Amino acid sequence: MELLTCWIEETLCRLNLVETMDQPKGFSRLGYSKEEQASQEQFRSIAKELGLQTFQDAAGNQWAVWQVDESADLIATGSHLDTVYNGGGYDGVAGVVASLAAVKLLKDACFKPTKNIAVIAFACEESARFNVSTIGSKAIAGLLDTDKLALFEDSSGISLKKAFTDCGLDWDALHEARLEDHQLEQFIELHIEQATQLEKTGKDIGIVRTIAQPTRLRITTIGKTNHTGSTPMDERQDALVAIAPLISFIEQETLAINQRNTPLVATVSTIQNSPNAMSMIPGEVVLGVDIRSTSAAAKHELVQKINHFVRTIEAKRAVTVSIKILVDDDPIELDPAIHATLTQLCNDIGLSSMELNSGAGHDVMNLAKRWPCGLLFIPCRNGVSHHPSEHADSDDLLKGTKVLAEYLKRVASNEDPSLD
Amino acid sequence: MELLTCWIEETLCRLNLVETMDQPKGFSRLGYSKEEQASQEQFRSIAKELGLQTFQDAAGNQWAVWQVDESADLIATGSHLDTVYNGGGYDGVAGVVASLAAVKLLKDACFKPTKNIAVIAFACEESARFNVSTIGSKAIAGLLDTDKLALFEDSSGISLKKAFTDCGLDWDALHEARLEDHQLEQFIELHIEQATQLEKTGKDIGIVRTIAQPTRLRITTIGKTNHTGSTPMDERQDALVAIAPLISFIEQETLAINQRNTPLVATVSTIQNSPNAMSMIPGEVVLGVDIRSTSAAAKHELVQKINHFVRTIEAKRAVTVSIKILVDDDPIELDPAIHATLTQLCNDIGLSSMELNSGAGHDVMNLAKRWPCGLLFIPCRNGVSHHPSEHADSDDLLKGTKVLAEYLKRVASNEDPSLD
Repeated sequence: MELLTCWIEETLCRLNLVETMDQPKGFSRLGYSKEEQASQEQFRSIAKELGLQTFQDAAGNQWAVWQVDESADLIATGSHLDTVYNGGGYDGVAGVVASLAAVKLLKDACFKPTKNIAVIAFACEESARFNVSTIGSKAIAGLLDTDKLALFEDSSGISLKKAFTDCGLDWDALHEARLEDHQLEQFIELHIEQATQLEKTGKDIGIVRTIAQPTRLRITTIGKTNHTGSTPMDERQDALVAIAPLISFIEQETLAINQRNTPLVATVSTIQNSPNAMSMIPGEVVLGVDIRSTSAAAKHELVQKINHFVRTIEAKRAVTVSIKILVDDDPIELDPAIHATLTQLCNDIGLSSMELNSGAGHDVMNLAKRWPCGLLFIPCRNGVSHHPSEHADSDDLLKGTKVLAEYLKRVASNEDPSLD
Repeated sequence: MELLTCWIEETLCRLNLVETMDQPKGFSRLGYSKEEQASQEQFRSIAKELGLQTFQDAAGNQWAVWQVDESADLIATGSHLDTVYNGGGYDGVAGVVASLAAVKLLKDACFKPTKNIAVIAFACEESARFNVSTIGSKAIAGLLDTDKLALFEDSSGISLKKAFTDCGLDWDALHEARLEDHQLEQFIELHIEQATQLEKTGKDIGIVRTIAQPTRLRITTIGKTNHTGSTPMDERQDALVAIAPLISFIEQETLAINQRNTPLVATVSTIQNSPNAMSMIPGEVVLGVDIRSTSAAAKHELVQKINHFVRTIEAKRAVTVSIKILVDDDPIELDPAIHATLTQLCNDIGLSSMELNSGAGHDVMNLAKRWPCGLLFIPCRNGVSHHPSEHADSDDLLKGTKVLAEYLKRVASNEDPSLD
């Protein structure tokens, strides 16, 4: 097994386009960028070395297929290669590496699958660049509104359509990435936990039951800008002073809901202050709020509290506050049969596991709307993610690889116990 | 007098490069920009029509001189032509127009001055573009550190030196704009009040005693970014949540100091949040705080309270907060003799006046460090400034013009009562 650990570590570096994973500035490999393309090229090379057939679909997803019979069912596994700005090298890549390593493990063990097995590296999973997440997996599941999406821009004003086209892809053909129901049997993803429950409990593997999906608000406060030096304190319509207490309020209310054992996280993650000049009173502030829970009711309770709170701000201050709901997605339940199989096989191969929920969204959530799906977590150090210090141990990657390989072996053998 | 009102209104539009002052998006005529240069060209045309000699000094300040005798003393008046982003068309321009109109009034009345009279349109008064204010008047007073200044950049990354050079000016000659003591006798500026004391009291003219100068802080809060979905509330190092209460605290403490009849204004005017992405917890927040008062002690009291407050934040939260003092300038006292003359002459010509302090900085504050200086305010509607709705009535511009003209007449006659 030592050789496979070595291969995992090398493959991790290759997909991350580095010699060592110790990168103080982390990884900035945004969706539909040259950097993501370079990583995809590595993916194709590695897949070819493993004897897999590679192709790129109409959404820019990379496929590496262990094809046994054109008419056989297809089981897929995988994750993504893109990162946030200055993110870590494991969020996404860990799942791609483990999927490839699982295939390698099965090939090295001379396993003969009865079904076709695909490793997918989904394009543009992160919302960091275009404020839209999981574009590649949405395309496969047929969940994209391409007309609306074309207009989304990154911070340099480059539209998603332009970035897509610059990758040599055809925007008008994007819908062709959609798979028919019969083209996929099931999908399983491995990902780092991005939290600390595995680390705290000492468990090897997390098996996810529910994926929390975000509710996202854009809260716009309009006051009036004026000169900072000449405008007395009691004549101001300072939008930032007016809305600042909401930032503390959201934390307090979220903590209070957590006290009732309902897991909920909420973050004022973005703020645009205008005119944002030293001698000018803030006239307009736009906050972006990201709310997640496996309980839709808990998210809606918080949104209601926020609504009420901003009305009290309007009543006290000479500002107007408007709330736009950008996204309000219900939590996704993963397949119970796959969950049971994963739990059983962890036990069978001597790994400890626990049931978890996922606070973050993953590509699997889109596929889960149409096909039976599973999601595995491996521990990551201190739960840190989206940060240069993000880290998963090679041992944990190996354990995850073993679970994936064992799962693929069970479902791609003549005796398939998982889908009865 | 009706003809002069008409001339004032027309000149106001010409200097603002518009046909009408009703501009919903206001005026964006930044320092050392093509727009400022276009306004300066108008200034020179108008000055020539009045029979004044024009030249540009080494800092890009525009001079229009009514020269009676090369060896006579020089009295100057004026203000600036640049604006903030989407600012008003009166902040600066009102003073330039009134100065030119005062000269016209004196010329039309066949006044024969015994001293040379200059109207100056100072370059780059606003800090909006380069985060440095009153560059032109600082150059005349010899207060610039050109080596340090050259590196300042605007939001597009254009350095002050480059913008300056693009205006056809020579950075290495900038120091030559400095005047020797004997080259200027005194300076008087007219400006819109940018506050509401004149409007509230119904007075025609404000005569400024003291100009508040800013103390400016940059407060950097460093926490740790992480994924918004997967990081539980109790494991976060959210820099924005940590520092948000400071925004409310600064307002509360400033109001409390005002309660003791010490005028003080303080504004959290800028905020940079990193990474400012929807799915990432804020890891670093930089606040810009602008504090002004005619009392240096009041400013320092507030800074001390802010210092103490951020220490309590550090004690409660897993963040570090550092405070850098960017600017800490003492208030500027204007010349008492000029103040007395202005008060007297308002009374003599039938205008009501009141003593005021200025919360905002003006070009005159730099010249006041070396020469006797005065500052006049005229009302502006609702005190609004740095905003498209900024407005001063033509009547008030005319009254200001009359005060300036009368003042110039008194100090540039054989009998000069102001400088005994």
